Amino acid sequence: MQRIRLGMVGGGEGAFIGEVHRMASRLDDRYQLCAGALCSDANRSIRSGLKIGLSEQRCYTSYEKMIKVEQNRPDGIEVVAIVTPNHLHFKVAKKFLSAGIHVICDKPITINSDEARELIELAERARLILAVTYNYSGYPMVRQAKEMVQSGELGELRVINTHYAQDWLTEPLENSGHKQANWRVDPEKSGIGGCIGDIGTHAYHLSTFITQLRARTLCADLSSFVKGRRLDDNAHVMIRYENNVKGMIWASQVAPGNGNNLKIQIYGDKGGLVWQQEQPNELIFTPYNKPTQVLIRGSDNLSDDANNYSRIPIGHPEGYIEGFANIYKEIADAIVVSRDGQKTIYDNFLFPSGLDGLDGMKFVEAVVESNNQDSDWVSL
Amino acid sequence: MQRIRLGMVGGGEGAFIGEVHRMASRLDDRYQLCAGALCSDANRSIRSGLKIGLSEQRCYTSYEKMIKVEQNRPDGIEVVAIVTPNHLHFKVAKKFLSAGIHVICDKPITINSDEARELIELAERARLILAVTYNYSGYPMVRQAKEMVQSGELGELRVINTHYAQDWLTEPLENSGHKQANWRVDPEKSGIGGCIGDIGTHAYHLSTFITQLRARTLCADLSSFVKGRRLDDNAHVMIRYENNVKGMIWASQVAPGNGNNLKIQIYGDKGGLVWQQEQPNELIFTPYNKPTQVLIRGSDNLSDDANNYSRIPIGHPEGYIEGFANIYKEIADAIVVSRDGQKTIYDNFLFPSGLDGLDGMKFVEAVVESNNQDSDWVSL
Amino acid sequence: MQRIRLGMVGGGEGAFIGEVHRMASRLDDRYQLCAGALCSDANRSIRSGLKIGLSEQRCYTSYEKMIKVEQNRPDGIEVVAIVTPNHLHFKVAKKFLSAGIHVICDKPITINSDEARELIELAERARLILAVTYNYSGYPMVRQAKEMVQSGELGELRVINTHYAQDWLTEPLENSGHKQANWRVDPEKSGIGGCIGDIGTHAYHLSTFITQLRARTLCADLSSFVKGRRLDDNAHVMIRYENNVKGMIWASQVAPGNGNNLKIQIYGDKGGLVWQQEQPNELIFTPYNKPTQVLIRGSDNLSDDANNYSRIPIGHPEGYIEGFANIYKEIADAIVVSRDGQKTIYDNFLFPSGLDGLDGMKFVEAVVESNNQDSDWVSL
Amino acid sequence: MQRIRLGMVGGGEGAFIGEVHRMASRLDDRYQLCAGALCSDANRSIRSGLKIGLSEQRCYTSYEKMIKVEQNRPDGIEVVAIVTPNHLHFKVAKKFLSAGIHVICDKPITINSDEARELIELAERARLILAVTYNYSGYPMVRQAKEMVQSGELGELRVINTHYAQDWLTEPLENSGHKQANWRVDPEKSGIGGCIGDIGTHAYHLSTFITQLRARTLCADLSSFVKGRRLDDNAHVMIRYENNVKGMIWASQVAPGNGNNLKIQIYGDKGGLVWQQEQPNELIFTPYNKPTQVLIRGSDNLSDDANNYSRIPIGHPEGYIEGFANIYKEIADAIVVSRDGQKTIYDNFLFPSGLDGLDGMKFVEAVVESNNQDSDWVSL
Repeated sequence: MQRIRLGMVGGGEGAFIGEVHRMASRLDDRYQLCAGALCSDANRSIRSGLKIGLSEQRCYTSYEKMIKVEQNRPDGIEVVAIVTPNHLHFKVAKKFLSAGIHVICDKPITINSDEARELIELAERARLILAVTYNYSGYPMVRQAKEMVQSGELGELRVINTHYAQDWLTEPLENSGHKQANWRVDPEKSGIGGCIGDIGTHAYHLSTFITQLRARTLCADLSSFVKGRRLDDNAHVMIRYENNVKGMIWASQVAPGNGNNLKIQIYGDKGGLVWQQEQPNELIFTPYNKPTQVLIRGSDNLSDDANNYSRIPIGHPEGYIEGFANIYKEIADAIVVSRDGQKTIYDNFLFPSGLDGLDGMKFVEAVVESNNQDSDWVSL
Repeated sequence: MQRIRLGMVGGGEGAFIGEVHRMASRLDDRYQLCAGALCSDANRSIRSGLKIGLSEQRCYTSYEKMIKVEQNRPDGIEVVAIVTPNHLHFKVAKKFLSAGIHVICDKPITINSDEARELIELAERARLILAVTYNYSGYPMVRQAKEMVQSGELGELRVINTHYAQDWLTEPLENSGHKQANWRVDPEKSGIGGCIGDIGTHAYHLSTFITQLRARTLCADLSSFVKGRRLDDNAHVMIRYENNVKGMIWASQVAPGNGNNLKIQIYGDKGGLVWQQEQPNELIFTPYNKPTQVLIRGSDNLSDDANNYSRIPIGHPEGYIEGFANIYKEIADAIVVSRDGQKTIYDNFLFPSGLDGLDGMKFVEAVVESNNQDSDWVSL
Repeated sequence: MQRIRLGMVGGGEGAFIGEVHRMASRLDDRYQLCAGALCSDANRSIRSGLKIGLSEQRCYTSYEKMIKVEQNRPDGIEVVAIVTPNHLHFKVAKKFLSAGIHVICDKPITINSDEARELIELAERARLILAVTYNYSGYPMVRQAKEMVQSGELGELRVINTHYAQDWLTEPLENSGHKQANWRVDPEKSGIGGCIGDIGTHAYHLSTFITQLRARTLCADLSSFVKGRRLDDNAHVMIRYENNVKGMIWASQVAPGNGNNLKIQIYGDKGGLVWQQEQPNELIFTPYNKPTQVLIRGSDNLSDDANNYSRIPIGHPEGYIEGFANIYKEIADAIVVSRDGQKTIYDNFLFPSGLDGLDGMKFVEAVVESNNQDSDWVSL
Repeated sequence: MQRIRLGMVGGGEGAFIGEVHRMASRLDDRYQLCAGALCSDANRSIRSGLKIGLSEQRCYTSYEKMIKVEQNRPDGIEVVAIVTPNHLHFKVAKKFLSAGIHVICDKPITINSDEARELIELAERARLILAVTYNYSGYPMVRQAKEMVQSGELGELRVINTHYAQDWLTEPLENSGHKQANWRVDPEKSGIGGCIGDIGTHAYHLSTFITQLRARTLCADLSSFVKGRRLDDNAHVMIRYENNVKGMIWASQVAPGNGNNLKIQIYGDKGGLVWQQEQPNELIFTPYNKPTQVLIRGSDNLSDDANNYSRIPIGHPEGYIEGFANIYKEIADAIVVSRDGQKTIYDNFLFPSGLDGLDGMKFVEAVVESNNQDSDWVSL
């Protein structure tokens, strides 16, 4: 099968998530990275491209130039991965979609919901794929959890508690020139949400992905514990989901001892599920009044979704890159389907799309609004 | 050393917590259980007393009779343990205090804060001990946590997240004659709080015990998931503690897979601590940017508080009964001090007193009020 | 019910295991400690006895005197707990059995198998109970494991791997006057086994208790890693159990990071079990090709043996003292049965008896013999 | 940088480890897979090659043909990955080395040590790389462990206990046509070792890699628990390493509940280390008499080796494929160094070479010999 021709915007020297996208695209050999505009600085952009093995003529000094050239090459890119800081997502994605090129956008899709809606409509009209890398939904055991909830193994849902805690912003790194910290705490580059946008949206997406329930209203309390920090670095949120399900999200980047501690607990009247990103190959399931079971990736009797997105046998741990690669793999399937100009039926796929991106934006906006209104309940 | 003469009200046949109090009192051989009014029914009360080895003449048919007789015996009881359903705590405690007998009361101290205040004043005037068994504060590693927070090992505190989850009320047990379930979901016997009173107060007390911070305001969302249940069985609470510390409490009795899952996470600008009741011998400590440490009960270099309330070497697990017994042990020390009629200086001891009981009442009242006001912030 | 009158030999000031026996005897209120000869030094013996609340006249200066007096009191002790260093077990036990008093002996029962056999015969003839506190068999989840193995849930057994690792003898503590270390590394006081006798026998007993299989032959490699230490501080043993079951025991007191890490893994053709003493409330069970289950003390559907020796609900951890107390509780039942002079039918009880003590001796002797013969296979 | 041209022998339809090698080679984009002889059957070989994207002309019907063609192409392969069943490793590797092509061979390198020696000499003479994929040594935290042991953080070593347990051969899968099971239990295809060769050698290599100590003598007890199985499916081995270090290896493929449970514990007079393959991002370190530390991949203050072979931040789990890819990455570095005909200095690299392969063979041969001699100590 012919590899999908992929371009990338962002992800040059010193970046983190760009290399993750590249590894994810390579793992299953479904893509060939052909072109890139990796940095805003022209020289660094070229240098970064050469370093990762792009041919010189397809290392572009700007994404606009990249579009212009690539859309006229017979072997031009079919899809672009956008891995820039948040505030650029919208205008870059818009240009690529307008040029007829599928878009894989890192989260958050944009920095507000109006922009997200605009991109969704644009992709819809152009029959193009607009994917957003809420990558944690790519883990096989998350897909197993989704399948179990949907098939009723927990009964009627009651409680969804999710947290996402890190500790790397415990001190004011942004004051000492730390590149990753810098833009994340800058409202111009990140939007109105700090940690709630950076990681809180992952937590929220995970909860909606597994349960297929969306928040109706929420009530939030944000903090910026580090002196002088302009965006939140800790968020407490109470949520009322659809169907009278109650929940909480705690997101923090100032919680020492937490590397990347994303955890979800889901309870219904027939059972409970717990999944933790740092032990992603396990899913803990307790049918009410029966022994707790440890379900493990790669074992028999898991759902098709879990098995299809698993590569190696039980006990051989898969991790973050593999989960991320599952999103890429499924997008590849969708691109193949759409090669004849067919519109992508998102419902046939589980990868997060622009609609999930929009939900994330609405979540962040509601959280900030609630916080500004002394934690009143705010509808999404 | 002469054993302290102990009486008990409640804790007869079919009860759970009474036997825990008795084991706790026996473990360190500081008490002798001499008298009891164990059931409201006179016959069962006698039968229950004989069964646990009380002499016949000190098995009483009512607590009033017990007071009358015991206060006139030269070897009458010095202290009474009150382990009845919640609604009786107040009137029983009041009578014993009025008769000059120290009181150890199971939590919650009363069913509202006015009653709690009355008992506190009564004990104060009579120079008697009024202890409340928030027993989780008796675990050695909880005391270690307290010591570490107080000595600044976490730096300036920022976040306190606590949860207490159980699953035994997932189904409407109260409809099938389950004694423990019955009174817990009955407002007449439990007061205005269901799970928030039964276990949420334990979580709240734990957070205040370790950090020595009290909630200033809170905002709560209560649920009664089981149809027909008159009190809450799930509570989400956002808290603003003193000193700008933020927190959350989640309490639930409908979370399958949770036996008695009390857990606290505390974060400051220099480090984090995690403790879980189901693995009580461990305390997880992460100094910021250093490796996480597993502190274990019985090891060297723990604080005096932790070591003094530890009985056996590292790796030999102590559990719930031992933690409970630590409360009893310390109350024994306090009773000895007060034998000459001295007033107990609570600050010299760590066991929870009437003031902690009152805090618990205020917490429950604030949670219920906030919930009734659409989750407005309510001051304590 | 009348409490059983208990005496104690050993366990005075500075001792460890004596206080454990006392707490274990108190927990369920089945015993009353009435008499003691707690130290070899007469003065310290009296002082120690008074300190723990014995009446002055029953604090004896020697165990011989204690026997003489107690056997002539109408309320003399019915049973004695022997908690001296190992080398004294035999002669003390022999005297008490000869005087018609039941014996609870700390392990190892003696320092060689001939002595063990002599005690067994003596007890047999006198229709007295001779119990040995291999206390780990008292944990409810160990009893659950036994029940599951016996009822065939693992199928035909194949492999039993057990280890017991500690770290407290990593350095030559015995050279700095550490009382517990001193006698344990002294062949005169401990017998021919160092760590293999002190903790290896616990591991071996645990394996035989759960599986009801005894070792047929074994092959061992002992080490004394600490310079100048006269007894082994590390033991590797390969075992061939009955029924063609293979196994290993590793015992070590020089393994930093191990507090009291006793762990057993049992595998059959239908499933596997894992139990760890440091998390004693859990038993991990995997039926072949099905999800691993976490069985928890206090939950429904456990065996009667597990439930009968459990005191508090699921999630409220019980520990070492509770497990030890289960041995005492069951011995109390046996003593009650034997009060009319009936011979104790050990098969009706699970507490370890002299026969288990003898097995332990044979195990240690075989290990040392194999080690001395360049790890040849040695029969037990 | 130009990608290294890679060929593959074995790894066609239905194979497992071939795809792992391919993913490992792709992850860091250092290789381009150009040619393959993937199956012994000519048609399936072509079909398999096309399926994974090889050009038709470089899908070969036999490895001999592949060598002949590739060595004459200007863009012929530089290195071949051999992923056939064990018994073919030797003759395939010999041919490629003879043709001047580097070899990456799956373990075990051959089926006896004479063959291993021959390959090593051949590679040596030809100045070619001969690598063996003992992939577990590629995990960053294994490299951290090696660094810590070598720098003396454990002090003088005393005990090395390693186990590798699986459960997938609990039942006679080989009788029902299971391809992976079939050849593993067939002495013609696997050599004299069953589970001891398949996984026991991984455990042994891991122990030597981290400690840089080799076994001097060992003493083994093998079992074939499944009726009719011709090779061992369970092995207990006692080992005396160099420097008076004692150890054990337990390997089993009939231990229900064990997916791929490779675990090593190393103890010295100053500390202990524990690492488990199923939680590969953690390394547990206890300096004697200090709190246990949890070292985590991606955190600061780890060794260069650990950090250089880590791709993503702390808390974002890396797994088996990433560890395997580290071996490939380092081999790529070595190939680049050797491109000018220089001999590879293995000491500059950590990837396992033919010498490690030979050690594995000697280990298996000694285990089988000891077992055949009633578990006598056998020198390696």
